[in-house]
Formats: sequence, C-alpha cells, structure tokens
Amino acid sequence: MKKLINHPDAVVDEMIEGYAAAYPQYVSVLSANKRSVVSVRKHGHGKVGVVIGGGSGHEPAFMGFIGKGMADGVPVGNIFASPPPNPILEVTKTIDSGAGVIYIYGNYAGDCMNFDMAVELADMEGIRVETVLVTDDIASAPAHEIDKRRGIAGGFLVFKTAGAAAERGYTLNEVERVTRKANDRLRTMGVGLSPCRIPQTGKPSFTLGDGEMEIGLGIHGEPGIQRGSIVSADETADILLDAIRQELRLESGSRVAVLVNGLGSTTRMELLILFRRVDARLRELGISISRSYVGEYVTSLEMGGCSLSILKLDEELELLIDDPADTPMFVQMG
Amino acid sequence: MKKLINHPDAVVDEMIEGYAAAYPQYVSVLSANKRSVVSVRKHGHGKVGVVIGGGSGHEPAFMGFIGKGMADGVPVGNIFASPPPNPILEVTKTIDSGAGVIYIYGNYAGDCMNFDMAVELADMEGIRVETVLVTDDIASAPAHEIDKRRGIAGGFLVFKTAGAAAERGYTLNEVERVTRKANDRLRTMGVGLSPCRIPQTGKPSFTLGDGEMEIGLGIHGEPGIQRGSIVSADETADILLDAIRQELRLESGSRVAVLVNGLGSTTRMELLILFRRVDARLRELGISISRSYVGEYVTSLEMGGCSLSILKLDEELELLIDDPADTPMFVQMG
Repeated sequence: MKKLINHPDAVVDEMIEGYAAAYPQYVSVLSANKRSVVSVRKHGHGKVGVVIGGGSGHEPAFMGFIGKGMADGVPVGNIFASPPPNPILEVTKTIDSGAGVIYIYGNYAGDCMNFDMAVELADMEGIRVETVLVTDDIASAPAHEIDKRRGIAGGFLVFKTAGAAAERGYTLNEVERVTRKANDRLRTMGVGLSPCRIPQTGKPSFTLGDGEMEIGLGIHGEPGIQRGSIVSADETADILLDAIRQELRLESGSRVAVLVNGLGSTTRMELLILFRRVDARLRELGISISRSYVGEYVTSLEMGGCSLSILKLDEELELLIDDPADTPMFVQMG
Repeated sequence: MKKLINHPDAVVDEMIEGYAAAYPQYVSVLSANKRSVVSVRKHGHGKVGVVIGGGSGHEPAFMGFIGKGMADGVPVGNIFASPPPNPILEVTKTIDSGAGVIYIYGNYAGDCMNFDMAVELADMEGIRVETVLVTDDIASAPAHEIDKRRGIAGGFLVFKTAGAAAERGYTLNEVERVTRKANDRLRTMGVGLSPCRIPQTGKPSFTLGDGEMEIGLGIHGEPGIQRGSIVSADETADILLDAIRQELRLESGSRVAVLVNGLGSTTRMELLILFRRVDARLRELGISISRSYVGEYVTSLEMGGCSLSILKLDEELELLIDDPADTPMFVQMG
C-alpha cells in the first residue's frame, strides 16, 4: 500500500486542515470541533440549512460540496465511518439561521444512529431538523424493501437538489419534500473492479480475481449481486442501465439527469466511454438527457470501478438541477 | 489490466464521442475530423482563439477545458501521442475569428513537429498563429537548459491565463506575452508512485518497487531524477517545494497560485494532506497563496502520484487567474 500520508491515524484531521487551507474563501473548520466544516457565508438570512455528511474517504463528497447552492456544513467521520453526534450538532448550531436544518445522508446504520441523536440534541437547542436518507443503490436491497437500500453516488444529485431549493428560499418542509422526491426518482448501480485500502489497516476492501468484476458492489466494498468475468464498457453500461430503467419506468419523453461516477482509480476516459453507451441507449428509447455529470463525485478512496445514476426529472427537479452552485469541488454556472 | 473499454484501438474515438454527448452545451466534434473538438460558442467576435492540446490520456486535460475563459478548441492525439497536423489545422480554421490563434502545448518533440506544421498550414490559409510551449517540469532538464524542459500539470495555469486574457480582448501579441510570462513564472515537480497502462499495450509505463517512489517522474513515465524509498507526505511536499522555491526565488511578500495535481489513482485525501504542508511552509516564509487548486487537472491515465505547481503571480497574472471560466471539467465563478 503506497500512500502519500504522514501517519495513518492522522489522515482525516490533516486532510481537513489541508482542505480548509486550500479553500478559505469557501469553508472553515469550527474551533469547537476539528471535524465540523462549515461554509464561511453568512448564515443569518433565513435560509434553510443543508447538512450532508458521512464518513471520509469519499472525497470530493461530502465536504467538497460546501458552498452556494449546495451544503452549508459537513460533519466529517473517520474513513468509511459515520461522524459522531457532536460534530453534527456543532455544524447544525452554526449554520441554522432560524429556518431549520435538513440532514441528508446515505442510509447506513451508523449514520442513522448518530444523525438521529443529533436531531434530538438539536431539538433540545430549539432547532428544527428534518432528515432525508439517500437510498439510491439498487443492488443493496430488493425493490419491495427500498427503505433498506444504501445511499451511494446518486446522493450528489440529491444534495444538488436540496441545496438549490434552500438557496431559492424554500421552507424546511418544502426542501424536505423536494429532496425526498429527488431520492424517490433516483437510482444508481455500480460496478467494482479493484479494491481500495484504508490507511489504518492496509487491507484491501474486497478481493476480486484478475479478470473479474462485481456488479452492485457498495462504496465501502459491500458485496454486490453478481460477480463474473469483466465485460466490455458497452455491456457494463447496459447491465447498469437496464436495472435502473426498469425501476424508474423510463419511457419515451422522459427527461433525466445522468451521473457516471468514478470510484477513484478508474480514468475519465473509461467513464466517458461508458457514458457514450448510456447516451446512445437513452436516445434510442426517446429519453432526453437534460444534464450530464461524468467524473469523480463520490469516491471510495482509490477503488476501481464506477456507477451509473439516473434521476428522472420533472419540471421542478430540472430547474433545481440547473441552478448554479459554487463549492470548492463542484462549480456549475447555472 | 482491468479497464472499462470496448476495444483498445477505439478508446480515443469513443471517449471523444462520449465527451461530446455528455457536454453538448459546451463542445462539438468537427465532422471533418473526429479528433477536432471545438467550443460551441460563436467564434465571430474578434477574440483571439486559444488552442491547447496534446495526446489523450491526460483527462480532464486537454479537451475538458474547452469553454469560456479557457480554450476554444482542442485537437486530440492518441494516448500519450501528439495530434497530427490535420486536426490541429481544422480546429484552427474553425475557431479563428480573424484575431489570430495561439497554440499552447507541452514541449515534446512530437507535439512541436505537428503543431509547427499546422502553423505553416494555417499561414497558407491566412491565419496568424503564435505558439507558447509549456516548460514547467523542473526535473526534465537543468535550469540552464530551460528550453529543453517538458510541460506537465502546471500547463493548466498557463491555459487559464491565456484563456482569460483572450476573453478580456487582449490582442494576439498581448495574449502571447502574458502566456509566456505565466510559463516563465511557473515551476512544477512531480512524484510517481505507481504506473499506468496504455490500453493497446497493457504494459506498465514504468516499474517501481513496492516501497519506492520516484521524484521528477514525467507524465508519460519519463524517468525522474531520484528514486528511493517512499517518504511521508510532508517530506514529499518539502522536496517538491524546495526545488520550486529555489528556482522561482519566492520570498516574503510573494503571491502565488498553487496547484496540487493528482496523476490518476492518488486520492484527493492524499493531495489535500500534501497541500497542507505546502501551505504551512509558504506561510512560514511569508508567501501568500492567492488561489489553490487541488485535484485532477492533468492526469496520466491511472498513474499513482502527484505534482506540485507554483505560479509566481504579479498583478496582471493574479487578475487573469481569478477570472471566471466555464468548461465541462473546470468551472470557476471568478
């Protein structure tokens, strides 16, 4: 395991320090808690606060997305581990402007426990919090148990929706409504090619044979639904798209946003080649891509592989996805 | 070698097709030549045309940077190989609005030959072209042979400067002057940890032992200046920074732009940890960072490692670096 680090136990704190030093025009770290990263924008204008979060190791998610039109604050956990309640609470107190706060995070047991505790603590401080869990990963549970599904890369599109809605002055209930709608109309499926290694353990997150790929692999190396020989980019795209298309009932005339997300060491070249097939297939079906994102949005350290996310738009979602955003690691002119 | 591709010989064309399909609001591919990618903006407003380019495999460079405040067109070569004169000429003819065109590319023999031929061909078409070679790689030749140095990741900052100057309405001579100034005040040094594999050959671009790193390694696997045991992120940062600092004569009061560029499979976490040390060292020296970029800007497929680039600003360069840019793979609000 070759990594440019100082000490395995220091990577998260040093990463946050480096991040705050690189982007002081966007973010600062709360002195109360080294794991609480917040926007430097003024928080006193009645805007609903947007908190996203989860473990680290998924950069640019989550703290890379703090700024106008996206999140106001991010509590940062250890690698692939939920942040504890305290940094969540500190972020919440700092960014609340009286309009309430929305928590958006992937559906993992640790995150649910800690964010729920923070909701209770925030309530004691008089801050109203609503929660939306991201459950976009098709492979993580069957369709009739959708609440058991995990959140993966598609979360980016949910954060984008919520951030834009909050920026437009939606009330907390309205932000919650549209955030939930985005999650409901979103599906993701991933494929893993090679593992990552957590600095502290140095162990691979999973093992795969030289010529193997795993469909549906989770972003922390959770088992997928099918392991087999590696197939072509086009065949991979078809597998991912067909699974998504079926659930979302995409049909001629549908409008969608598409995200092809790299997990870490898969090149932009490969992601674009995969996107090419997705685009061709959607065209054939009469489905219009309103906006595309191809790159690294939610990674798993240096894992190899990618995922395809599709958000089935309606008029409201399309406007929100098109809105501008200005963060250190995602900028869109709108 | 696990890659999400269809056929090794098709990767570049399919990547370009995927790219144009993903970002139709920004770019199109000329029908005359499948390797000529141009901005969809109108080119009739007397703006100097900015052409950047080189081999593919460096995504998001070069074609990812087509748009407002950056490049107007990119001829795309095979992986790690210069584009031939024809796509360069086609791009040039398409984007010239009568104000002339600037070619900016890394100093490699193949690129020099092909772009120079394109200059002659453009001249026959009555299009005036000026050329600036990027020569930021300290490790590629000694300081007294600076014209022999190769261009690596720092080129991004040169493209940013030129694109902003052209957008502001600078004349061709003025764009050339400021682009050359940016290159003169820019230094980069890289470190390689693990090789990439070109799809056609499947062979690693170099070999390094399990615990080894190579300082000064080029972005196509060209040998560096020192191979040794892997050291900490802080020590790595110090090696890179000290080499750059000496040549640029950075001193208290200097203002700089900093780019920490990932080569492909090195995580954003590691890049931020390395940046942290660069920032701390520059602070100690009384040097101000005006703007930071931490991420993948010029990659080498899935190579492991990174580079540090520093651009010593003056008032003009700082304004141009701060200007907005809007491209598929780099957006800055300004």
